[in-house]
Amino acid sequence: MFKKRDNIKEVEEGKYLEPKFDENGLIPVITSDFKTGDILMHGHMNGEALKKTIETKEAHYWSRSRKKIWHKGQISGFVQLVKEIRIDDDQDSVWLIVDIKDGASCHVGYRSCFYRFIPMGKILDTKKIQIEFKESKKIFNPKKIYKDEPNPTKL
Amino acid sequence: MFKKRDNIKEVEEGKYLEPKFDENGLIPVITSDFKTGDILMHGHMNGEALKKTIETKEAHYWSRSRKKIWHKGQISGFVQLVKEIRIDDDQDSVWLIVDIKDGASCHVGYRSCFYRFIPMGKILDTKKIQIEFKESKKIFNPKKIYKDEPNPTKL
Repeated sequence: MFKKRDNIKEVEEGKYLEPKFDENGLIPVITSDFKTGDILMHGHMNGEALKKTIETKEAHYWSRSRKKIWHKGQISGFVQLVKEIRIDDDQDSVWLIVDIKDGASCHVGYRSCFYRFIPMGKILDTKKIQIEFKESKKIFNPKKIYKDEPNPTKL
Repeated sequence: MFKKRDNIKEVEEGKYLEPKFDENGLIPVITSDFKTGDILMHGHMNGEALKKTIETKEAHYWSRSRKKIWHKGQISGFVQLVKEIRIDDDQDSVWLIVDIKDGASCHVGYRSCFYRFIPMGKILDTKKIQIEFKESKKIFNPKKIYKDEPNPTKL
């Protein structure tokens, strides 16, 4: 769908979009909040989702759990308005800077999916590493919003 | 190596680190600059790299091009001092907030790997989408620093 990658110099410092999709046809996407700078989520796009995002200025992803194009906010109402789209040196990952107003981007109900941190230092037992909460307030109640939608988290 | 994932509620809202590695044993990692908030790079870790990062407070990744643990900055000197490690809701991606001082994190020489953006709007021809530079100044000359190291960018 996009320009063919046939020259490394062109991929790294050229002026054309030549994204690299993995063996499943996906490219990883980092989404950050333009107001706070926080990372909101880590997702994936296929070519169509990238094209739709560029054209509509609203974030579209590929849902790996539902196996279809996912217009973020379709169910929850928390659409991500895209302020900027960046692409990295070898064009195999995308960074979206988005405005979510006072909304949330995490299906668990928090503003960011990254609501916990891993304390650093000597590990005594890798099977017992405790993590701690960084965000404590849920923006919405996922049970009310998603109702019978299956949980995208898999074991 | 880490605690077994056997309960979705525990993965999402529990207190233990239960990271999910993909079919290649890797977890994606977003690295941001604690000073500017900019995303510096998108990488991967295996379990060992995650453990080393937690313990040493310096970013370690899995180099997919060299197929080995990669202590970032080993060659370039631009070590990433980790200020915080976050994990997302389903524990299948990691966010590192790092201090790189006045250094760089991109093998092409820029501070961030995301030095170009994709202008938004109607696409006339997906094969001719032009991207534009956001960073114009290289922090270092990669030819001088990396010498004969192979370029990690692949077509």
